[in-house]
Order: sequence, then structure tokens, then C-alpha cells
Amino acid sequence: MDEIIKLIHGDGGKHTSQLIEEIFYKNFQNKYLLDQGDAATFQLGNELISYTTDSFVVKPIFFRGGNIGKLAVCGTVNDLVVSGATPLYLSTGFIIEEGFERKKLEKIVETMRDMCTQANVSIVTGDTKVVEKGSLDEIVINTSGVGVNYSGYKKNKIDAGDKILITGGIGEHGTTIAVDRYHMKISGDYQSDCALLTPFLSVVNEYKEAIKCMRDPTRGGVATVLHEFMKTTEYGICLYEEEIPIKPSIRAVNKLLGFDPLYMACEGRMVLVVKREEADKVLRMLQSIESGKDTCIIGEFAQMEDKMIYSRNSFGGKRIIPELVSSILPRIC
Amino acid sequence: MDEIIKLIHGDGGKHTSQLIEEIFYKNFQNKYLLDQGDAATFQLGNELISYTTDSFVVKPIFFRGGNIGKLAVCGTVNDLVVSGATPLYLSTGFIIEEGFERKKLEKIVETMRDMCTQANVSIVTGDTKVVEKGSLDEIVINTSGVGVNYSGYKKNKIDAGDKILITGGIGEHGTTIAVDRYHMKISGDYQSDCALLTPFLSVVNEYKEAIKCMRDPTRGGVATVLHEFMKTTEYGICLYEEEIPIKPSIRAVNKLLGFDPLYMACEGRMVLVVKREEADKVLRMLQSIESGKDTCIIGEFAQMEDKMIYSRNSFGGKRIIPELVSSILPRIC
Repeated sequence: MDEIIKLIHGDGGKHTSQLIEEIFYKNFQNKYLLDQGDAATFQLGNELISYTTDSFVVKPIFFRGGNIGKLAVCGTVNDLVVSGATPLYLSTGFIIEEGFERKKLEKIVETMRDMCTQANVSIVTGDTKVVEKGSLDEIVINTSGVGVNYSGYKKNKIDAGDKILITGGIGEHGTTIAVDRYHMKISGDYQSDCALLTPFLSVVNEYKEAIKCMRDPTRGGVATVLHEFMKTTEYGICLYEEEIPIKPSIRAVNKLLGFDPLYMACEGRMVLVVKREEADKVLRMLQSIESGKDTCIIGEFAQMEDKMIYSRNSFGGKRIIPELVSSILPRIC
Repeated sequence: MDEIIKLIHGDGGKHTSQLIEEIFYKNFQNKYLLDQGDAATFQLGNELISYTTDSFVVKPIFFRGGNIGKLAVCGTVNDLVVSGATPLYLSTGFIIEEGFERKKLEKIVETMRDMCTQANVSIVTGDTKVVEKGSLDEIVINTSGVGVNYSGYKKNKIDAGDKILITGGIGEHGTTIAVDRYHMKISGDYQSDCALLTPFLSVVNEYKEAIKCMRDPTRGGVATVLHEFMKTTEYGICLYEEEIPIKPSIRAVNKLLGFDPLYMACEGRMVLVVKREEADKVLRMLQSIESGKDTCIIGEFAQMEDKMIYSRNSFGGKRIIPELVSSILPRIC
């Protein structure tokens, strides 16, 4: 057991899970937390409520396609959406380093305001702290969010043949953060996919029975989400290599860096496991939404002798997609 | 207008209010936020819900009488209590510096667990981030909280003669943080008053009509809370100098440091404005609770030519208690 906290404890992979289990779950035992969803869902009066939180430490705080404020609103709103809830109210806590430019703060807050308007949520409570220069790298933001779970969506048992859908290109957020952080001189259309998942709420509400699992693949990317899904079943996962939507520019820079886009964070995508018979219908519904037009089916659950995730190409080539065990890039969200 | 964010923007006084108004209220306009309570209160289905958040950046993270985890649970629970709500569920977001000792993290989380048990609340959702060494001073914690507002408590218009009550000695948290942070070699019973206000919930529920305002005097201390109360009325405040409960040890170190305990944070006290006719009854009820046994009436609202807060001693001496305009001590919570 590590004596100190390391960067890998924050990468969303195996070490993060271990730390959370050994320290947080061990002490804060309750059925809502131990359910390990992106949000906790509980009854309050006559309503089913979902509740979630995230802290944002992204570096750089302004990046192509967004900033830390956009991420903070989208991240929390999206965690509610993939829990089947309609987001309503947010809280926000700012911690700011002394000397931070007021103009930057205004820009961040204006972006948050615009995203709240788009998502139809209100920031109803907040807190602001300022710390001495040198004791924080610019700014961090926490958001929590409360939504009403009208859908009553619940995770369902996965069966062999159930399909895996993703609502758009993968790895775009994580890759853009890498390019922007290291000022890489690469041409190409890098842009974070950071966006609200609220447009998909209608599909979630309508197809809640057909959708067995949903998650937004942030830290650790699509591969990490799939490993989480796989842990709840007896089946392995077969990915259709050529079907995984990866922009050429994203593929190129990941090759250069030695990264695999499957492990790179998305901040505006949803991964869904859908009952095999309904997969095509849900696919078409998601594709009919502007931000879901690139939705594809990228794989399926399958009976295997050795339960694992592998990616297969049309020539029959297979590669194993293991669980993330070392940090690729800290501070991507 | 300042071009950069300074420490005084985080001290809870005049500059904090200005920053919040000019940036946050301006952009996040909604009636719940603009109500400026310690928590936002809204209807959700058939329940009245209160919702609040705070980030904690206290230094040192372990201090006499508590640690950052105790503060994080008490702070959020207390904001719900002074809003008239019974706390139910909390979220927590940890940001940890690489290299932080795992044992310290365990200690903090165990304290949070114990405080949750005492407060009868559950941490149902959370998030953990790790940042590179040097980009954060050890650890910061955000908590948000949701409670049901059974009391239906609402702020009421203050009248001349209404009494000001405090549930115990003032300035103990802020002073202890100063002593511990600067390793001052002072003998005396310094200890933070950090504690839950949940034992007072029964009084809040029973006397909600008599209680006109409530607040926990954290950043900026009792003086700052009284200035906030005064802004909502046409009356000034007369404090009874000798009645303000200040431990001799707390008084001594504040004198040494040139601080006034009236501006030093409490983390387990409640300031109440109570209808004059009911003040003695509420006083006795609060005194009958173990953690409220030192409750006293420390002043009253009064008609004045120049609206202000002054403190009067039994010899007739008066001193003005102005609004806090410069930071005494950053990172006290």
C-alpha cells in the first residue's frame, strides 16, 4: 500500500478506484455512495433526486474548445444526465490564487453563465476562497448539482450481444489539453469536445428500459468506462476497431505522443450499453440529435473464456485493451 | 476596480461582497442566489429543500480542536442549520497534492465519517483529484449539502429592541488557527470551537417565528455577520461590551496580535436575532443544550441618528465596530 498519494491516484484508473475503495468507501459507507454511479440517486419527498459533485483542476485553464468554467458546468450536468436525471440546480466553489487576473475570472464566470442557460440550470449557491500566491496553480472550481430523476432510470444487467454506443469522436478533450499544455506546434483541428449532454435527455427518458448502462467517459477515457461496465458482468467486450470514431488529427497526435485515444478523456460524449434488439433504434434516435450525429455502435458484450476487452479489425487482428494502470496525463479536467 | 484578485477578496468582508456582487451575482442571476442566505432554499416536489456549498483551504490542516475534514462537514451542515434545514446528504470533492501522506488523508476522512455520524448525514457522492507537487498547498476539500427545510424558516424584518444572541465564546477558531499556524509559544486553552450546530435544530424548528435572522459567524467573525444583518434594516446595533463572551486566553492573544475577537472566525457558534419579547425564552432554550450553555444576549437593534454598530461598556464608553475592510488572516477555513 502506498504511503503517499501519487498522481496515478487521480487518473481515474485502477489506482484511483483502489484509493476510493480503501479510504472513502470504507469510511463513508452508505448504499447511495456504494452504488458507484456518476451521481447518487435517492428519494426526497415525492421526488427521485440525483446529486453529484466534481472538482476541476484542468491545466491550462483556457484551452481550444472551452475553459475550466465550461468544464465545471458540463461535467456536473453530464453526470446528472448519465444518471437519468434532469439537472436543475448547481452549486459552485471557487478557490483562486492571489494575483489571478480579474478579467480571466470574469471570462470563466461568463462561460459558466452561458452554459447554465443552455442547460437550463441555475447556480443557486456558491463560495469563494482566495489563497496566497504560490499555494495554488491559478484556480480550481468545484461544482455540485441536483436534478430530478424523472426517468427513474436504473442500471440493468448486461447480456451477451448487448451493444456499445458512443455519441461522437473520442479522445478529443484529453488530446487537446495535451497539445495546448505543451504548446505543441501541430496543425490540425484540435478542439475539446467539452459540451452538454442535456440534448440526449429525451432519448434517455424514452429508452430508459433499453439502456442498460450509461456513462460519460472523462478521466481514463472510453477504455476505463468499459472496464467499469465489464466488472458488473460475466461477459467480455469485443470492440469493432474500424468503427471507433477517432478524428485523423486526434489519431495522429496520439501516435506521436505514444498515447491511445481509447484512454483519452472525452467531456461531451456518452457511452451507452443498449439491449441488442433496440440498439439500432437508439442509434438512430441519438444520430437525429445535432450533437449526436456521429453516434456509432463500437462493440458488444460477448461470452469469452478469458473475460477481457479486445479490439478486432476486419482482417481478424485483435489487440487487448487492458485497464489503465499508469497516469497518462494529470489535470485533464 | 482591482485588476487582480487579492487576499482581501477572500476574507469575508467588504471586498468579498463586492467581488461576489460584481462577478457572481451579476452573471448567475436567480432569486435563490440573490437571496444571499447561507444556503439556497427552493421547492422540489412536495419538499422545501436547502442547498449549500463551501470550499475549505484552512492552514494548518490539523489544528487544536479539529482538522480540515471536521471543518468541511461542520461548515456545510451548519450552513443548512442556520437556514432552518435538517441536513441529510453531503457531497465532497478532494483535491490533493502529490506526495501528501496517506495517513493524514485517512485521519481527515475518519474525522469526516465521525462528524457525519454525529450530524446524522451521509456523504453520498464525491470526487478525488490529485495535482502535481507544488501546484497546491497539501489539500483542499469542498463539501456541498442538501437538507429538508421542515421549519419553513424565513428571515423576518428586524425591529428596534430585537435582541442579538450568540451560542458561545467568540473568536476561538480564528485565534487558534493563528496560534497554530505561527507556532506561537503561548500557554492557554486554545482550541477551535469547530462543532456541529445540529443540536440547536429543535430550537430553530420551535422558535422559527421568534428568530428573525440566524447565521454562523465564520470568515469575518461576529462583526461581519452583524453588518450583514444591519444592512437589511433601518436600525443600528448596540452591543453590550461586557456581555460578549470571550475567553481570557482568546482576549489575551488577540491583544498581543492587535486583532479584535469580534472579527475572528467562529466555526461552531450561531448568531441569532430574536424578537425582543421572546429573547429570554429562546436564550433559556439554547442554554439548556450542552453546546449552547454559554449562550448570551450580546446586544440589540436600536434607532440611531447615524446607523452604525457600537459597543458600549457599563461606564458609558462607546467604540464603533466598523465593517471589516482589510484581511486579518487568510485561510482560516
